[in-house]
Amino acid sequence: MKIIVDAMGGDNAPEKIIEGCISALDVVESEIILVGKSQIVEEYLKKFGCKNERISVYNADEVVENEDVPTRAIKTKKNSSMVIGLNLLKEGKGDAFLSAGNTGALMTGALLIVGRMKGVDRPALAPIIPTYTGKALIVDGGSNANCKPENLLQFAIMGNIYMKTTFGVDNPRVGLVNIGTEEMKGNELAKNTYGLLKEAGLNFIGNIEGRDIPLGSVDIAVCDGFVGNVILKVIEGMGKIFGKMLKEEVSATLLSKIGGLFLLSSFKRFKKRMDYTEYGGALYLGLEKPVIKCHGTSKEAAIKYSIIQAENFIKNNTVEKIRENLSFREEKSIESD
Amino acid sequence: MKIIVDAMGGDNAPEKIIEGCISALDVVESEIILVGKSQIVEEYLKKFGCKNERISVYNADEVVENEDVPTRAIKTKKNSSMVIGLNLLKEGKGDAFLSAGNTGALMTGALLIVGRMKGVDRPALAPIIPTYTGKALIVDGGSNANCKPENLLQFAIMGNIYMKTTFGVDNPRVGLVNIGTEEMKGNELAKNTYGLLKEAGLNFIGNIEGRDIPLGSVDIAVCDGFVGNVILKVIEGMGKIFGKMLKEEVSATLLSKIGGLFLLSSFKRFKKRMDYTEYGGALYLGLEKPVIKCHGTSKEAAIKYSIIQAENFIKNNTVEKIRENLSFREEKSIESD
Repeated sequence: MKIIVDAMGGDNAPEKIIEGCISALDVVESEIILVGKSQIVEEYLKKFGCKNERISVYNADEVVENEDVPTRAIKTKKNSSMVIGLNLLKEGKGDAFLSAGNTGALMTGALLIVGRMKGVDRPALAPIIPTYTGKALIVDGGSNANCKPENLLQFAIMGNIYMKTTFGVDNPRVGLVNIGTEEMKGNELAKNTYGLLKEAGLNFIGNIEGRDIPLGSVDIAVCDGFVGNVILKVIEGMGKIFGKMLKEEVSATLLSKIGGLFLLSSFKRFKKRMDYTEYGGALYLGLEKPVIKCHGTSKEAAIKYSIIQAENFIKNNTVEKIRENLSFREEKSIESD
Repeated sequence: MKIIVDAMGGDNAPEKIIEGCISALDVVESEIILVGKSQIVEEYLKKFGCKNERISVYNADEVVENEDVPTRAIKTKKNSSMVIGLNLLKEGKGDAFLSAGNTGALMTGALLIVGRMKGVDRPALAPIIPTYTGKALIVDGGSNANCKPENLLQFAIMGNIYMKTTFGVDNPRVGLVNIGTEEMKGNELAKNTYGLLKEAGLNFIGNIEGRDIPLGSVDIAVCDGFVGNVILKVIEGMGKIFGKMLKEEVSATLLSKIGGLFLLSSFKRFKKRMDYTEYGGALYLGLEKPVIKCHGTSKEAAIKYSIIQAENFIKNNTVEKIRENLSFREEKSIESD
C-alpha cells in the first residue's frame, strides 16, 4: 500500500504535514510518497532526522494556493503538488491521496483526474464529527449544493460501507436530516428521499433533527451538501465560541483561575472529546480511488490520523465494496423493471 | 396594551406560564389576559397570591396537546386556549398572543385565524439565538421548508425592522446563509437571493457560513426554513452536549470537583451567556398581529421575557412599520415596471 500526500497543501504546510507523515509511519504499514518542492521537503525530513525507507519524495514545483480559483488552478498548475499527486493516484503509483489544500481545487481535481466510480452520479465529501457518544458521518458535507433524492440514497449507501469498513461500525444507524421526525415532514428533497432510504436495506432510523447529530443518535446523517456544510460550520463555530467563553470565564477572577488549575485535566479530556482530529479527514466518497481532504488547519496529529484512516480504507477494499453494492442495486433495479 | 397568553400550552403549563406572567407585570405596562381552564388558572393565581388588576382570566375548556395534528387541532378544538386566544387577538381584544404550545398548531392557527399581513407571501418564524458577541435572529427559523428568493428577501426586510424596533439594533447586519463567501456560491436559492438582498437597501454583508452565526458576525441570518431549523437544532444540541460533557468532566475526580466549586460563578456566567431565555420567544413575522412562539420547555423567566419582547414589539409599531416598508417597496416596483 502506498499513500500519496500533498506536502504543500494547508495552512501549516509543509512542516506539519511532513511531521504528521513521519509519526504515521510508526503505526501504519503503508509507504508514503510526499509530493512537493523536493528540496524543501528533503530539508524537513533531514531536520526531523527521518531516515525511514518507507517515505519518499516526488518533486512538484508549483503549489495550489487557497486563493486560487479551483477549476483554473487544476487546469493551469499542472506541476502543482495537488495535480501531480492526483495524477500519481490515477496512474496507480499509489492507493490513496491526501491533501489539506484548497478544498474546491481538490474536489475539482479529484473529479477531473481520478474520476467518478461507475454508477455514482455525484461523489460526496464525507467528514466525521465528534458527538456525545462517539462520532458521526455527515454526507454530503459540502460538495453538492443541489441534490436529487437518488443522490442522497447513494450518499447513504456509500457512507454505510465506509463506516462499516473503515471505522468498524457494525450496523450504522442512518438518519435523514429533516425538520421533524414524521415521515411527511420537510422540503421536497427530504420528502422524496425518505421512501428511497426506507427501501434501501439500510439500518434507516428515519428522519432526524439537527440536535440528534451532536447528541449521537445516528452514525450517518444524510443531507444535501448545502445543509451538510452549514451543519459542519455551525458545529465548528459552536465549538469555537464555547472554548473562548469558557476560557474567558475561567480566567475572570483569581478564585476562578485557581479553580481552573484544579480542572486542567478535566478541560483536557473535555477538549479531546470534542476534537475531530483523530477521526482523520473528510473522505471524498464515490471516486475511483480514495481522496481525503484534511482540514486546512491540520497539524501533525490530524495528518497522522488521516493516514491511518486512508490505510484502513484501502485495506478493507472500501472502493470495491461500494462498487459491488451499487452495481448489485443497479442489476436488481433492471430486473425489477 | 393587552397581551393574550395561552395559559395551557407548553411542558410546564399552566403553573410556570402563570408564574412568568405574574413576574412580567412588575416590568411591563400591559395588561395580561390568561386564556385557559379558568378554575385551574384562578387557583394558581390565588396560590401565588396575585391580586394584580392588570391580569385577567378568559375561560377555555379545551387544550391543544403536543401530539395533536396541527390543522385538525385548530379545526376541531374551537374551545382550546390556543384557538380562543388567537380569536381574541383577531377581534382586537388584545395586541399580541403568546403560546408555548404545539408549534405546528400555533403556526397553522395564526395563519388561518390572524392571517398574513398584506404584501407578505410567507410569514416566517424568527427566533433569537445567543452568540459570542450578543444575539442573532434566524429567519426563517422553521416555518417554510421550500422557499423562493422573494420569500428570503421579505424575511430579511421583516427581520431588519424587527431587530431595529424591538431590540434596538441600530443598523442590523444581514447575512445570507451559504456555503462560501463568494457571490456565486451555493445552491440555486442562495445564488438567486444574493442579488435581491444586495439591492434591498439593507446593511447586507454578503454570504455567511454556518460558523459566522455563533461567532456573532451577523445580526440577521437569512435562510429558508429548512436550513434555519437545522441551524437552530444543531445549536441546541451542541449546547446540550457541551453542558453534559462539562458536567461529567468536572465531576470526574475529587480534585476536579473541588475546582468546580471555585468555578461556580464562572460556570453560571458561562451558562447565562448561552441562555436564550432573556431574548424571549420566536416571533412569527409577517402576520397581521404579533404571535410569539415560546419554547415548549419555557419556565417563568422565558415567559416573562417573551412578554417584555411582545410589549416592545407593540409599543414600537413593528407591524405597521413592516407594512409600510413592504408597501413602499411594492409601489416602487410598480413604478419601475
